[in-house]
Amino acid sequence: MSPWYDLMAEYGMALDEDRLEDWVELFAEDCDYRVVTRENVEQELPNVLIWCDNKNMLRDRVESYRQVNLYNPHYDRHVIGPLRKLGENAFEASYSLFQTDLEGVSRLFSVGRYRVEVTGKQIKTMLVIADTGAIPSLLATPI
Amino acid sequence: MSPWYDLMAEYGMALDEDRLEDWVELFAEDCDYRVVTRENVEQELPNVLIWCDNKNMLRDRVESYRQVNLYNPHYDRHVIGPLRKLGENAFEASYSLFQTDLEGVSRLFSVGRYRVEVTGKQIKTMLVIADTGAIPSLLATPI
Amino acid sequence: MSPWYDLMAEYGMALDEDRLEDWVELFAEDCDYRVVTRENVEQELPNVLIWCDNKNMLRDRVESYRQVNLYNPHYDRHVIGPLRKLGENAFEASYSLFQTDLEGVSRLFSVGRYRVEVTGKQIKTMLVIADTGAIPSLLATPI
Repeated sequence: MSPWYDLMAEYGMALDEDRLEDWVELFAEDCDYRVVTRENVEQELPNVLIWCDNKNMLRDRVESYRQVNLYNPHYDRHVIGPLRKLGENAFEASYSLFQTDLEGVSRLFSVGRYRVEVTGKQIKTMLVIADTGAIPSLLATPI
Repeated sequence: MSPWYDLMAEYGMALDEDRLEDWVELFAEDCDYRVVTRENVEQELPNVLIWCDNKNMLRDRVESYRQVNLYNPHYDRHVIGPLRKLGENAFEASYSLFQTDLEGVSRLFSVGRYRVEVTGKQIKTMLVIADTGAIPSLLATPI
Repeated sequence: MSPWYDLMAEYGMALDEDRLEDWVELFAEDCDYRVVTRENVEQELPNVLIWCDNKNMLRDRVESYRQVNLYNPHYDRHVIGPLRKLGENAFEASYSLFQTDLEGVSRLFSVGRYRVEVTGKQIKTMLVIADTGAIPSLLATPI
C-alpha cells in the first residue's frame, strides 16, 4: 500500500488504542497540529479548538492528559476514507469518529476532514477541519 | 494509490466541499447516474430517486441546484470503504454519508453501495444503491 | 490495490450482500474466527461472543442461519478504514457497521477493530474486537 495510507492507518489506530505517545511520534519536530471547525474556516473566524505548533507542545499535551486521566472514560474509533492527493507532499481525507462509553454504547462523535502535509515519513502539518461543532470539554483527546 | 481510489476520494470530497461542478467533471459525456434504494432493487421495482442518463442532465441538475439554494443548509461527509473489483473496468464500494446541520450537529444520513463502471479515468455508470430509505426532499444533492 | 484491501473489501461486501457462503470461502480450513468485546480483552476476561475454530464450524453456522432465517430482517453495511500492517502476514483495520431495518431506517450497530492473520490469500485468524458492547440476540450474523 501507499505510505500515506499506512500513515493514516497508524494515525487513527494509535489514537483508538490509546497509544498517544506513538501518535506524537508520527509528527516532525517542527510540526503544526490544529483542530478547527468547518464553520470557523468558512466564516474566516480565528477560533481554534486545539493548536500545537511544534512537537514538544504535542508531547506536553499528551503528558498532561496522562496525569489528569487515570483511566480513559471512553473508547475512540476512527474510520478514515480514501485519500485525495493535493500535491507531492499533501493529501486530504474524510474521517468519521465514534465514541463508545464504558457501558459499551457507541455513538457518532465527529465527522470532518484531515488536511495533511508530510515531510519524509512524518506529518509536517495536520489540520483537522471538523464538520461537527466540537464540544470543548470532550476535546481532551486529539481527533 | 490505485486510480480508482483516487477517483472515489475525489468523488466524495467534491460533494462534501460543495464542488458540484467538479463532481460533474468526473463523469463521461454518455454517463448514467442513478440513485435507487436497495429495497427497490431486491423487489425489482422500477422506482428511481435520481436518474441522469448523460452528462448534460448532471450539469442541468447542478445548475438548478445552484439557483434554488442560496446557501447550503447542511454539510455532507462521505466516508467510503475499500473497493471491490468487479471486472477490468468496474468496482463497488460501501459508503457512509453523514450530514451536519448549521448548528454543528452531525447525524447518519445514508449508508449503501456504489457500483461503478469507468471508461478511461471517468465514470461511465454510477449506480448508488442506498440501504437507507431515502427521504426525497433531502435528495436535492447527489449521494 | 493491495491484496489485503481486496480481501477486506470482499469480506465486508459478502456479509452486506448476504453472500455468507462466499464469506466462509475467504477463510482457510484451519482458521479461527472470534468475536469479542474490547472490554473483555482489556479486562482479560474469557468471554467470547462467537467462536469458530475451523472452517467447518463456519459452514455449520451459516447453514443453521439459513435454516432459521427465511428472510434477512435487516441489512448490514460495513465501512472499513485503512489497513495497519502488523507483520508479513498480519494487519488490523477499524470498522463501522451500520444496520438498516425493513422500514429503511439505518443506525450505527457496532464499531471496532479487525485483527487479521492471512495464509496465502485466505484468512487464518480473524479476531473481531468490538468497542460496542454486543447484544447477543442480534449476533446471528457475523461482524
